[in-house]
Amino acid sequence: MARIVMKFGGTSMAGSERIRSVAARVKREVAAGNQVAVVVSAMAGETDRLVGFCREASPLYDPREYDVVVSAGEQITSGLLAIALQAIGVPARSWLGWQLPIHTSDAHARARIGTIDTEALDASLAAGEVAVIPGFQGVADSGRVTTLGRGGSDTSAVAVAAAMKAERCDIYTDVDGVYTTDPRIVPRARKLARVTYEEMLELASVGAKVLQTRSVGLAMKENVRVQVLSSFTGDDAPMADTLPGTMIVGEEEIDDVERQLITGIAHDKNEAKITLASVPDRPGSVAAIFAPLAEAGINVDMIVQNVAHSTGSTDVTFTVPAADLARSLDVLGQAKPAIGYDKLVHDTRVAKISVVGVGMKSHAGVAATMFTTLGERGINIQAITTSEIKVSVLIEEDYTELAVRVLHTAYGLDAEVAG
Amino acid sequence: MARIVMKFGGTSMAGSERIRSVAARVKREVAAGNQVAVVVSAMAGETDRLVGFCREASPLYDPREYDVVVSAGEQITSGLLAIALQAIGVPARSWLGWQLPIHTSDAHARARIGTIDTEALDASLAAGEVAVIPGFQGVADSGRVTTLGRGGSDTSAVAVAAAMKAERCDIYTDVDGVYTTDPRIVPRARKLARVTYEEMLELASVGAKVLQTRSVGLAMKENVRVQVLSSFTGDDAPMADTLPGTMIVGEEEIDDVERQLITGIAHDKNEAKITLASVPDRPGSVAAIFAPLAEAGINVDMIVQNVAHSTGSTDVTFTVPAADLARSLDVLGQAKPAIGYDKLVHDTRVAKISVVGVGMKSHAGVAATMFTTLGERGINIQAITTSEIKVSVLIEEDYTELAVRVLHTAYGLDAEVAG
Repeated sequence: MARIVMKFGGTSMAGSERIRSVAARVKREVAAGNQVAVVVSAMAGETDRLVGFCREASPLYDPREYDVVVSAGEQITSGLLAIALQAIGVPARSWLGWQLPIHTSDAHARARIGTIDTEALDASLAAGEVAVIPGFQGVADSGRVTTLGRGGSDTSAVAVAAAMKAERCDIYTDVDGVYTTDPRIVPRARKLARVTYEEMLELASVGAKVLQTRSVGLAMKENVRVQVLSSFTGDDAPMADTLPGTMIVGEEEIDDVERQLITGIAHDKNEAKITLASVPDRPGSVAAIFAPLAEAGINVDMIVQNVAHSTGSTDVTFTVPAADLARSLDVLGQAKPAIGYDKLVHDTRVAKISVVGVGMKSHAGVAATMFTTLGERGINIQAITTSEIKVSVLIEEDYTELAVRVLHTAYGLDAEVAG
Repeated sequence: MARIVMKFGGTSMAGSERIRSVAARVKREVAAGNQVAVVVSAMAGETDRLVGFCREASPLYDPREYDVVVSAGEQITSGLLAIALQAIGVPARSWLGWQLPIHTSDAHARARIGTIDTEALDASLAAGEVAVIPGFQGVADSGRVTTLGRGGSDTSAVAVAAAMKAERCDIYTDVDGVYTTDPRIVPRARKLARVTYEEMLELASVGAKVLQTRSVGLAMKENVRVQVLSSFTGDDAPMADTLPGTMIVGEEEIDDVERQLITGIAHDKNEAKITLASVPDRPGSVAAIFAPLAEAGINVDMIVQNVAHSTGSTDVTFTVPAADLARSLDVLGQAKPAIGYDKLVHDTRVAKISVVGVGMKSHAGVAATMFTTLGERGINIQAITTSEIKVSVLIEEDYTELAVRVLHTAYGLDAEVAG
């Protein structure tokens, strides 16, 4: 008898009809002989409604009370799904965060899960009950309700799967899996059967937003096999037998035959480029730029420092999240005397294109193929950054779709066309 | 330093603006030097929304899961009021039912409050915090969330007041106090400054629905002084300085000078009259009528048995709640062979008029005045029932307003007209 965690998002819980569809899907998993825990999100829109109430009560709301308010959304859906399961003959009960309990840090509104007690859960599963667990919530040592931050239900599901030693954690989402790239850009993109945690982290953090990044990191740490699959067969139809999605697993689970050089290509238009012109080329000048940005909590991503001008100065270019651009410019303006730059320019019309794959660890030439392919199409590379399993370049935003398409073909990722 | 419990209903919690008004009202009580606990209802309409979800999930919902779902409404408002209080400089925190805890029986959806632990509450109040407590909810020994049944927040407030030995429990409602009778019928009805628990129970149970009956019974048992007062100065205006409401107290607190013979006159149109004609006048025939009704959980109120006919049979007339009429007729139809009656007739066009007052204990003639007054107006009395502090009669519904008005005058309850 296998243990399975199933996680359903807000779209799947939006209204009684959909909750009944979810119950039917859970019932099939139980009928297959599995012990099942279900982690649920709040109904779509409900968390926004509750957050809105908190903001109206006070823009500077106490995060401890915010947690009391917003955790109600998942509490409601967990009770409703338990009722819907019982209605179709599946024994079920809800377990609120404080009832299991799911212990978390006391960082309210952005708590981290510590341990999850499984004594009660084990007994419930052994008794043949489906455990319905509200995602996104837990309890601090103080005895107060906590939440994990937006999107935290994915993390709850992975943490529950780790605690109960589940065979896998199935995350039902709006998409039916992880693709080699965005199918809206490349119709011949292929759904990946398997992807490693590391690849998923790179793909997620550079734009293929399917799972919350933190949940993937936790799955990797706890070695939880995560499957991403679709809640719906059509846009709005109840779930029929679900097609296999994408399994996110450890590298050791992917054998050499199926291993690709490149797994996928991601794009991200949410970065902004900042260039400081004529920065004095002396020790400490780079620190003078990045220390105040770090203090302001701004994540700097790609960094390029030009070779020094003959004048003894240099240009420094880097990217920050577009949402942090205004604040970055403010910080850098204030630091101008300390840095001593000449001009500050910025550009939001940029895109980051990344090729990702564990296979590139053992293959040279991946980066060269990327640069050559883009160069042949006249696409200028403004910055480069690499990791063991990723090469990213910054290009002009207008070339995003072209770059993704030509790279998808160049790395042999295009699906065979039938017939 | 006095301890005060303040309870606000759903209308007072409906939306951010009203919650801020409530916070301002609480702040005034704190500024007056009191230790304050606030018991809140869910936003108006929210409990109905959540109950609707449960019914959609399954008409035969598990009351344990129903409690998880519907208790979320008060959880939300308790967090929001704590935030709104902090925003105006009043230290405050929410205490959910399981956090205090408020221990209840395990009769889910209709649980009864047992004990309330006050250790944490006492420390919080002593530290100068306002405790915000969601009404309607508690926790069973099993560790599962319970609710008290609709309207249970009044009972929560009285129970909290008893546990923390509060000087009084102020219940803010849509009305500004308890009146001698319905002011819509008698414009010269007076607001009562004080009323005893016993009188309030009789007034509430016969139609003057201001407080949940159970909360009044608990206040009497625990000797909690309850004040009913208005949340609003106008229909929709935020609360200004609140006018005094009606204090509900023990009989010993009302001195002889202010004691009235009659406190108030109530009317109730929610009863139905049933008459069984030609019931055999023999031992056991009355039991044959009322035993099956009791088994079906139907409360019979007024009972009249005519003198026996010369034929050895009699007519039996009684009232049941109008909502139970159809079921009562069904039960009596099935019991016809056992009872042996001739005809079954019913009438919903009846009203029960009650005069209530602890003063009547020591005064004869209250009932005589009632019968004479009604008789002079040609109002026929169909049934009579009395208690130590109440006389009720059943009359034709069309005469309700007339009966209430003439009795209000007859017992000297009309307010002086100014000028």
